[in-house]
Amino acid sequence: MSRSRIKRIGILTGGGDCPGLNAVIRGVAKAAIRRSGAEMVGILDGFQGLVERRVIPLDWEAVSGILTQGGTILGTNNKADPFRYPVPDGQGKTAVQDVSDAVVKYIREIGLDILVCIGGDGTMTIAHQMSLKGIPIVGVPKTIDNDIAETDITFGFNSAMTTAAEAIDKIHSTAMSHHRVMIVEVMGRYAGWLALESGLAAGGDVILIPEIPFRISQIAAEVRRRSEHGRKFSIIVAAEGARPEGGEMIVRRTVADSPDPVRLGGIGQNVAEGLEEATGLECRVTVLGHLQRGGVPTPFDRVLSTRFGVKAAELCVSGASGVMVALRGREIIAVPLSRVDGKTRTIPPDHKLIEVAREVGTCFGD
Amino acid sequence: MSRSRIKRIGILTGGGDCPGLNAVIRGVAKAAIRRSGAEMVGILDGFQGLVERRVIPLDWEAVSGILTQGGTILGTNNKADPFRYPVPDGQGKTAVQDVSDAVVKYIREIGLDILVCIGGDGTMTIAHQMSLKGIPIVGVPKTIDNDIAETDITFGFNSAMTTAAEAIDKIHSTAMSHHRVMIVEVMGRYAGWLALESGLAAGGDVILIPEIPFRISQIAAEVRRRSEHGRKFSIIVAAEGARPEGGEMIVRRTVADSPDPVRLGGIGQNVAEGLEEATGLECRVTVLGHLQRGGVPTPFDRVLSTRFGVKAAELCVSGASGVMVALRGREIIAVPLSRVDGKTRTIPPDHKLIEVAREVGTCFGD
Amino acid sequence: MSRSRIKRIGILTGGGDCPGLNAVIRGVAKAAIRRSGAEMVGILDGFQGLVERRVIPLDWEAVSGILTQGGTILGTNNKADPFRYPVPDGQGKTAVQDVSDAVVKYIREIGLDILVCIGGDGTMTIAHQMSLKGIPIVGVPKTIDNDIAETDITFGFNSAMTTAAEAIDKIHSTAMSHHRVMIVEVMGRYAGWLALESGLAAGGDVILIPEIPFRISQIAAEVRRRSEHGRKFSIIVAAEGARPEGGEMIVRRTVADSPDPVRLGGIGQNVAEGLEEATGLECRVTVLGHLQRGGVPTPFDRVLSTRFGVKAAELCVSGASGVMVALRGREIIAVPLSRVDGKTRTIPPDHKLIEVAREVGTCFGD
Amino acid sequence: MSRSRIKRIGILTGGGDCPGLNAVIRGVAKAAIRRSGAEMVGILDGFQGLVERRVIPLDWEAVSGILTQGGTILGTNNKADPFRYPVPDGQGKTAVQDVSDAVVKYIREIGLDILVCIGGDGTMTIAHQMSLKGIPIVGVPKTIDNDIAETDITFGFNSAMTTAAEAIDKIHSTAMSHHRVMIVEVMGRYAGWLALESGLAAGGDVILIPEIPFRISQIAAEVRRRSEHGRKFSIIVAAEGARPEGGEMIVRRTVADSPDPVRLGGIGQNVAEGLEEATGLECRVTVLGHLQRGGVPTPFDRVLSTRFGVKAAELCVSGASGVMVALRGREIIAVPLSRVDGKTRTIPPDHKLIEVAREVGTCFGD
Repeated sequence: MSRSRIKRIGILTGGGDCPGLNAVIRGVAKAAIRRSGAEMVGILDGFQGLVERRVIPLDWEAVSGILTQGGTILGTNNKADPFRYPVPDGQGKTAVQDVSDAVVKYIREIGLDILVCIGGDGTMTIAHQMSLKGIPIVGVPKTIDNDIAETDITFGFNSAMTTAAEAIDKIHSTAMSHHRVMIVEVMGRYAGWLALESGLAAGGDVILIPEIPFRISQIAAEVRRRSEHGRKFSIIVAAEGARPEGGEMIVRRTVADSPDPVRLGGIGQNVAEGLEEATGLECRVTVLGHLQRGGVPTPFDRVLSTRFGVKAAELCVSGASGVMVALRGREIIAVPLSRVDGKTRTIPPDHKLIEVAREVGTCFGD
Repeated sequence: MSRSRIKRIGILTGGGDCPGLNAVIRGVAKAAIRRSGAEMVGILDGFQGLVERRVIPLDWEAVSGILTQGGTILGTNNKADPFRYPVPDGQGKTAVQDVSDAVVKYIREIGLDILVCIGGDGTMTIAHQMSLKGIPIVGVPKTIDNDIAETDITFGFNSAMTTAAEAIDKIHSTAMSHHRVMIVEVMGRYAGWLALESGLAAGGDVILIPEIPFRISQIAAEVRRRSEHGRKFSIIVAAEGARPEGGEMIVRRTVADSPDPVRLGGIGQNVAEGLEEATGLECRVTVLGHLQRGGVPTPFDRVLSTRFGVKAAELCVSGASGVMVALRGREIIAVPLSRVDGKTRTIPPDHKLIEVAREVGTCFGD
Repeated sequence: MSRSRIKRIGILTGGGDCPGLNAVIRGVAKAAIRRSGAEMVGILDGFQGLVERRVIPLDWEAVSGILTQGGTILGTNNKADPFRYPVPDGQGKTAVQDVSDAVVKYIREIGLDILVCIGGDGTMTIAHQMSLKGIPIVGVPKTIDNDIAETDITFGFNSAMTTAAEAIDKIHSTAMSHHRVMIVEVMGRYAGWLALESGLAAGGDVILIPEIPFRISQIAAEVRRRSEHGRKFSIIVAAEGARPEGGEMIVRRTVADSPDPVRLGGIGQNVAEGLEEATGLECRVTVLGHLQRGGVPTPFDRVLSTRFGVKAAELCVSGASGVMVALRGREIIAVPLSRVDGKTRTIPPDHKLIEVAREVGTCFGD
Repeated sequence: MSRSRIKRIGILTGGGDCPGLNAVIRGVAKAAIRRSGAEMVGILDGFQGLVERRVIPLDWEAVSGILTQGGTILGTNNKADPFRYPVPDGQGKTAVQDVSDAVVKYIREIGLDILVCIGGDGTMTIAHQMSLKGIPIVGVPKTIDNDIAETDITFGFNSAMTTAAEAIDKIHSTAMSHHRVMIVEVMGRYAGWLALESGLAAGGDVILIPEIPFRISQIAAEVRRRSEHGRKFSIIVAAEGARPEGGEMIVRRTVADSPDPVRLGGIGQNVAEGLEEATGLECRVTVLGHLQRGGVPTPFDRVLSTRFGVKAAELCVSGASGVMVALRGREIIAVPLSRVDGKTRTIPPDHKLIEVAREVGTCFGD
């Protein structure tokens, strides 16, 4: 075991919960301890732990047996950005304040040679900014939406996709038995990867994604076409960020006592109402929500998480910094955080998977 | 194989989708064919098929391999009550009409000696009324809510309970990682069995059921008590029919363009808003919805469904009528439909399971 | 919270691993602490811990979050009978010795007022004998075989049955695709409950159980009959304790270097060889083995385990002793250990479930 | 829809059962029908169907709803090689005969313009030889072992790996509760991919693969080392083709009545006996066997199978031939069958995944 200059490595998890976080933590810690004998420091609740100075030691024993556990043993927080840290403004509201200098000071005080930040695009942006302030950083991308730039895929996506596809499987039997249109709303505000892959995996008849604006009339036509061919039910998988052409929402219900009346219901409810109006068919909506974030990671994600974690440890020990681990083809590589910050990886309209879905008869509402 | 007077048996599935319907159909058909050589006739889409005269033959082959399939191969319909059958009123609206005589006539025309009706309380009520009109009927109770009278349990409940408990398991990791209050809304409009058993199975900290009116203040106290003991998250399992003491809903948002402003959101959303106001903690809601109705039945339900089906066939062949199969202790018995019609099986407030839940620390909000 | 005379309660898990053990431990501990403020003492590795004096405290925190975990946090041991305790004989072999007096002494030394023993028939026998020596005992029955007397069902059975049925589901597709006879060997040395229920749940064509001696010729006839009706595959579910009529094993292979040549292979292998000889068809065997003991308990078992645990705590606190908790119909009751010791609950040949299985076409090889 | 010269496409599945076969069949058929209006012909039971002249039409309806089904709707056969076709030799034994000319003749008779062969290395070899005889062929690689050359991964592998990892998860609780060494034998005669990935995913302490000869002494040392660090159990994942250094098997039991005494038991049993001798610890073996081949494909495999199927249809319609579809990075490409025939894709000893496994503490017994 060669000893590197890196003596103490901090690790934190930021942003929303995601299956595989613990597997990454275990991978980083075991590989770093094994490689360099470095001491691992766990930072609690994401960047909040750096502000509030809450850390714990992470030895081999502490990370044993967590590979298959959902969630993160370190806790997380998706609001604690040190550059815009929420603080009470003294008048019962919340203001934001830049506490990043204090964070830098604390990191140096506790002697962290490098910081491993596991999180989504928000976390990667903070990580990049921290690295610009001189803190050595290795990022590990995490997002069930799969929309982080520069990596083919991130851990958590396979688990979320599997949960979504198995939920759609369950809904299939009800759709068939009741001859209904069933709409399943899955996560994906800016990118449709989760809807596309889970819809393809579960045989969704219509898939709606943010990248392809849809028209209710086209969906209605597809539903009717199926009905004429004896398939009296349809399954629609909609990413939460899917939007109709022109951006016009269908639902006309508004909330009265809001100063600025907002439209109600997510995209699933919107499509249901539009489609019932257009076809007279009964439509039902299921919003998968938090189910997609939780639970035991799939074996695929446990392997990927472990690979990401080990690579991050390798980078730490070798003295790399300002980089994020990424999957490119079959390889795990390092990419500069500067290439990730501020970008979102959406589905190109001519992506092969969209073509494949169309070939087996999937309608995208366009 | 003894031959009974029963030559032709009709079978239909009514009401909402439920795991185990196909297993019952298979059990009835196989046992009836084996016992008496009776001819099985499948009626499509519940009572609608009797009105619209849509039936199919069901031989041994037709019911082979369906044991593990979700849904119903016969289709179902939860609006087609022959005593109040929806018909267009000629002015673009829907009126109801009693078409039960035509149904009786059709049943006799196609020579059904007896009719097996698989369904929930609605279906049992129709079945009872049909039997009062002289049609021999054997009912098989089905409801994921488990609220049908006179039977300890119905098939589908174990599957729905398992789906709900496994969903709560998934949500646990997010609750812990984010130190949040997570609210899971499960089915159960009048009876809280599903919330009670899935909540008990998944270690829900608070369980809200229609039978025990809750107070937000009590839930808030429990959540704070847990937090003081270092458990910074809580899981609340709420039956959709749970109600606050006094019946007052918490949510104040209303829909503007409705003539009679309705309150928005289900009970989950209501509790979330009340609890956020009372505690300042972040609350998130997941509504399981249709997931609970679908999917492959659990092995437990496949066994129970088969037992129900075989008993129904036995009753048909033996000339019984006007009865429903029911589980009593470890036995399958027959009970008069008259004792089922119009009743709902709710949880008695002193039920042992509630006591057990309290013993392990569950709060019911009372 | 009323305080009883019971101040300190010991708890141990004995015998083989079983899903739900931790749920029982949690149920006992939480209910006892809540009811009486009793102090809980966890004994490590079954009765071995009493011999080797290894115990740990079990407070509310220690049993929180273990409800869904497989295995037992206390460890178990299926060889440590204090009445026949294995000790080295000084000549490189193992002798047995009665160390029960030392165990009684230790129990009194550490001030246990009562001992909760969770285990199978072996554990219940030891528990009964300990109670005859004056130690207050409450037993909790555990066995995936479901063969403990005086209780309708035990926790763990539903989980094992579910694992077995889902494994048979998986094997179904291979059987159909290859037109093969697939034999699945499940646990059940003396009682066929697991084979019967998992076979019924997964649509096994032939079910072999210890209670009904089979003839290969009958199985072969059934397999051929199916083939003639176009079902070119068959699924055989065999309990490990199933035996041919007359007790004759089919396999002729023996182990050479054994002084007393033993027959090789379990019952699955035996049936496969006999059936291949009789029919010329390709037969494949899968032995489920330890898979049936492990894993997360089903929600059904988590509820039952919790009920058993809470009842055991109730009995402890109320001063009962020499009893075992048991499920009778829908109730949890207490039965004297003397009625359990030395008995095995096998399937009566006229049991309703066997009749049900025959009605849907299952062959028992008789 | 452009019409190509390809009017009629045959499709068969050969070799062992594998999750995703139906998804490929559906992908090929839907895409081919959609692209070119080609007529699809399903050949029953692999190459046997071409010899015995058993085919069925496959229209859009026939392949609808099969995406999630395990097995193959076409049936398969892993002995029917037309170049070495088993025929009775008239003396009660089986001889082999080259019936490939008859197969070629039949293919031309029924007007197949191209043949899609879905199968493992055996099937690809036959496919290559058929293409050398002038039959246009497109191969689709299938193997749960993942050992087909020229493709990064094949469908079925993720499903088998997931089944294996989840089985190891179940066995973990028993290992921990009993402080035992548990050995899980998974498929993989020549390549250790399945053992490596499922072992990595489930946190196996020792992984044994054909590519790395092991020494019992090294495994024993690792088991003891863990025990000294308080981990009194170990999980060993062994590929069926793993072998000790020098090739020496440990088991000394032999079958007597075999003319050439063979060693008994698979590698799992061998390691168990060697390890018990070396350490005195209790070792238990579970052989997963056919479980790994069966069941519903994972959503990952359903997507990959669909992509493979659509690409195969594309190749057929474009007039390609003598090729196999393959995954390279994120792309599906076509490779010449000649590059696949006769090769096996084993794990290079310096493969990154082995290094990753070592970094998190996995022992390979070397």
